[in-house]
Amino acid sequence: MSTTIPSARPRVVIIGCGFGGLEAARKLRGAPVDITLVEKTNHHLFQPLLYQVATAGLAAPSIAAPARLLFRKQPNVTTLLGEVERIDTAAREVQLVGGVRLPWDHLIVAAGATHSYFGNESWERFAPGLKTLADAFEIRRRVLMSFEAAELEADAARRRALLTFAVIGAGPTGVEMAGTLAEIARHTLEGEFRHIDPRSAEVLLIEGGPRVLSAMPESLSQRALEQLQKLGVQVRLNARVTSIDETGIEVESPFSDGGAGKGVHRIDCHCVVWAAGVAASPLGRQLCEATGAEADRAGRVKVQPDLSVPGHPDISVVGDLASAMSYRPGKPPTPVPGVSPGAKQMGRAASENILRRIEGRDTLPFRYRDYGNLATIGRNSAVVDLGTPFGPIRFSGRFAWLFWLFAHVYFLIGFRNRIVVLMDWASAYWSFERHARVVAHVEVKDEEG
Amino acid sequence: MSTTIPSARPRVVIIGCGFGGLEAARKLRGAPVDITLVEKTNHHLFQPLLYQVATAGLAAPSIAAPARLLFRKQPNVTTLLGEVERIDTAAREVQLVGGVRLPWDHLIVAAGATHSYFGNESWERFAPGLKTLADAFEIRRRVLMSFEAAELEADAARRRALLTFAVIGAGPTGVEMAGTLAEIARHTLEGEFRHIDPRSAEVLLIEGGPRVLSAMPESLSQRALEQLQKLGVQVRLNARVTSIDETGIEVESPFSDGGAGKGVHRIDCHCVVWAAGVAASPLGRQLCEATGAEADRAGRVKVQPDLSVPGHPDISVVGDLASAMSYRPGKPPTPVPGVSPGAKQMGRAASENILRRIEGRDTLPFRYRDYGNLATIGRNSAVVDLGTPFGPIRFSGRFAWLFWLFAHVYFLIGFRNRIVVLMDWASAYWSFERHARVVAHVEVKDEEG
Repeated sequence: MSTTIPSARPRVVIIGCGFGGLEAARKLRGAPVDITLVEKTNHHLFQPLLYQVATAGLAAPSIAAPARLLFRKQPNVTTLLGEVERIDTAAREVQLVGGVRLPWDHLIVAAGATHSYFGNESWERFAPGLKTLADAFEIRRRVLMSFEAAELEADAARRRALLTFAVIGAGPTGVEMAGTLAEIARHTLEGEFRHIDPRSAEVLLIEGGPRVLSAMPESLSQRALEQLQKLGVQVRLNARVTSIDETGIEVESPFSDGGAGKGVHRIDCHCVVWAAGVAASPLGRQLCEATGAEADRAGRVKVQPDLSVPGHPDISVVGDLASAMSYRPGKPPTPVPGVSPGAKQMGRAASENILRRIEGRDTLPFRYRDYGNLATIGRNSAVVDLGTPFGPIRFSGRFAWLFWLFAHVYFLIGFRNRIVVLMDWASAYWSFERHARVVAHVEVKDEEG
Repeated sequence: MSTTIPSARPRVVIIGCGFGGLEAARKLRGAPVDITLVEKTNHHLFQPLLYQVATAGLAAPSIAAPARLLFRKQPNVTTLLGEVERIDTAAREVQLVGGVRLPWDHLIVAAGATHSYFGNESWERFAPGLKTLADAFEIRRRVLMSFEAAELEADAARRRALLTFAVIGAGPTGVEMAGTLAEIARHTLEGEFRHIDPRSAEVLLIEGGPRVLSAMPESLSQRALEQLQKLGVQVRLNARVTSIDETGIEVESPFSDGGAGKGVHRIDCHCVVWAAGVAASPLGRQLCEATGAEADRAGRVKVQPDLSVPGHPDISVVGDLASAMSYRPGKPPTPVPGVSPGAKQMGRAASENILRRIEGRDTLPFRYRDYGNLATIGRNSAVVDLGTPFGPIRFSGRFAWLFWLFAHVYFLIGFRNRIVVLMDWASAYWSFERHARVVAHVEVKDEEG
C-alpha cells in the first residue's frame, strides 16, 4: 500500500519525535513544505525527567505530551504513529512496518539512541536500561517489588540480596537513579514495613571510569561523589561489570579502593539498572550501508558540517543518532555532546538548511551553543557548570539543586505539566513521599515465559 | 515456609485492599489485634474513577494510593503483597502463592470481583473489561491506537471499523465509557489528524436490558439515555451480543428499534470494551466448597446477617464478594447493592463484629445505609438519586454533574490527588484536552504471541 499525500510543495519526512525531531518540525512552522513526522510511540518524552517516573516521583503523563497534540495548530505537519522498516535512499521513500511508504524531498533522521550492553545483550533481561516510558515502568516495578519481596522473605541472605540495588554507569542517569534510590530507602518508605527496615537497603553505583559525571569538570565530579556518599550511595569507581544474572552481578576492580577490594567480586542483588551505555538506533547503520556514510563506534552516523549525509544533501541526521561537529569561526571543530540542547539545536539547524536549499542558498555549518551542563544527585544536591561569556560558573549543593529544578520545569512542555511537577516536587520535598508508587502489573508475564 | 508473627493478641487477616478491606483495617485502628492485610496489587484503587484512566483523562497515580502508605501510621497493620492460593479453613490459615502461610483468629475476605463473560471467556481477548489499572492502560491503548491506525489506513471499510467503538453493558461504567469516548472523538482530537475526521467515529453502547443504568429509577434512566444520545452515543437497548472476534461483534435485537433493526447484525469494530458483567473472585467458590456455604449465581458467598460465613463465625465476607442483606428494624431484609459505599460499610461492620466477638458480645446484623446513587454520563451531564429522610431527591444535567464531580473528589484519598484531579478536570473542561493520552506500550507482545 502506498499512502502518497498529493503535494506540489516539497515533502519533508522527519523520523522521530524526540528533542531533535520535534524542534526540526517546529522550525518549519509556516514554511511552504508538507511535513510527515513518524514516531514509534504516541508521545514526545521529556527524557531528562524519565528517572523520576522510574523512581515513582512523577506520573508518566507529567513528562510526556501526545505528539499530534503538539502539532494540532501547525497544519503543515502530519503525524503518523509507525515504525520505520527501511530508508529507501534510491526511491527516496521511508518504508513503515505494515507497508506504508512516505516519499520525501528532504529527510531528517532523528531516531535517537537505545541502550547498549557492549555485546552482552543477554544482560538486558536482568538489568533494564532507561530510555522509554515502558522502561521506566519496568524499573519502577522492580524497585518497589524488591522491597515487597524482602518483606515476605524469611531467609536473611535472600532478603539482603533483595535489598541491594545496583546502578551501573555513573553518567547523569546513573547518578540520579542512585541518589533517588537511596532517598527512597532512607526516607520515603520509613515506617511502612514491619519485617524489614528499608533503611538497611544498600545502593551501589558502579562506574568503569575513575570518576562520576565524567562529562563535568573534575571539581564538580568530586562534589557529586561527596554528595552521593552523603546520601548513602556506595560508589565503586574503576569497577568493571563482568557478568549479570538473575541473582546478582560480578564486578572486577583493579584497585583495592571503594570498600570492594581488588579482583573480581560477586554482589548478590535482584534489582539492577543499566545506565552504562547507549548505542545509536539501528536505522543509523542501515543508513550508512545504503549511503556509504561512516558510522562511529556507537553506531552514530558521521555527518557533514551542515548535518547532511555525505553525498546525500537531501538526508540530514540530528540528535543522538548523529556524530556531528560544531564549527565556530576561527576555531577548530569540536564534537557536539549527546545532550538534549545539542539535539534541539541540530533539529533546528537541519530544518534551517532545508529552507536554505529550497531557496537555492548555501547551507550553513552547524554551530553548537553550549549553555552549560547540570546534573542532580538527590535532595538538595546537584552540580551546575554554566558557560557564560565571562567564563564558566560552577556551583553545587542546594542552590544548584534549585537551579536544576527550575530549569527542568521551565523546559517541560505544557502549563499543566509544569504546575503538577512543581506541586509534586514541593510535596515530595516536605513529606519525603513519592506519589507515583503504583505498579500496574505486579508480575510481568513476558519475563516468566 | 511459615511466616508466623508471634502474637498474644488476636490475629486478623484481611484479604484485599479495595473499599471493603481498607475500611475493615481502618476500623481496627488502635484495637488490640494484629492485622495482616494481603493485597495482590501494591495499591488501593479508587475504582469509580478508573474509567478516567482508561479514557486518558487522569494519570494512574491520581486514583491509586500505595496500600502500605495508608497504614504507615497504623502500627497494628502489616501489609503484604501476595496472591492468595487457598483459604485453609481447617488449619485456619491463608496460604499465599510462594508458600507463606498466615494463621488467623479472624478472617475478613474482601477479594472483590472480576469481569464475567458469561461462559464466553474467549471474548476477553477482544473485549477487555475494566477492573484494574492494567485493564485501564490496555483500554487506553486500544482506544488511542484505533485512531492512529485509522489515520494510516487507506481502505475505507477498514478505516470505518477502526473508528467504530463498542461498549457492551450500560451500567455506570459502560455509560461513563461511552459518553467519554464520544467526547474524545468529537472534541478532544479535533484538528489533530490529517487523513481522518475523528468526529466521524461512532460510539455504540449495547445493552441487553430495556434501559441504561438499570439500578437507577426509571425516570433517571430515561434522562441518561437522552444525555447519551445528545453526546452522540448510539444506544442499542434489548440487544444481546452473540459473538465477539478480532474484527467485530454480532448483536441480536428482538425489536426493530434503535436503528439496528430486528435480527442478528454484525458490527465491524476493533475496539470493544466489556462492561456487561462481573463475577465474584474465585476465592468465593473456594470458600464455599471448604465451608459448605452457598454461592449465588455470580459466585458471591451468601453470608449470615452479621456478614460471617454460616458455621464459621471467624470468617466474614464483605464487598463485591458477599451476597449480603441489609436488616432494618421492623422491615424485611433487602439485598445490599454492589456499590462502593456498600463495600465500605460492610468492611467496617465486619471489623466491628470482630471486636464484639473478642469482647464476648453478640454480633450485630448488617444494616446498609443508602445515601443514594450517582452516575455521570459526560461533560455537564450526570444523574443523581439521593436518599433523604424526606424521600428521594432526583436531578440530572449540569448540576448533577457538578454534584458527582465534587462527591468523587471528596472521597478520593489524599490531598495531592484531590488537587490534581480537580485541576485536570478544570483544564479538561475548558480545553477539552485529556492530559494522559500517553501509551507506554504501543504494541502488546502478549497479544501477538
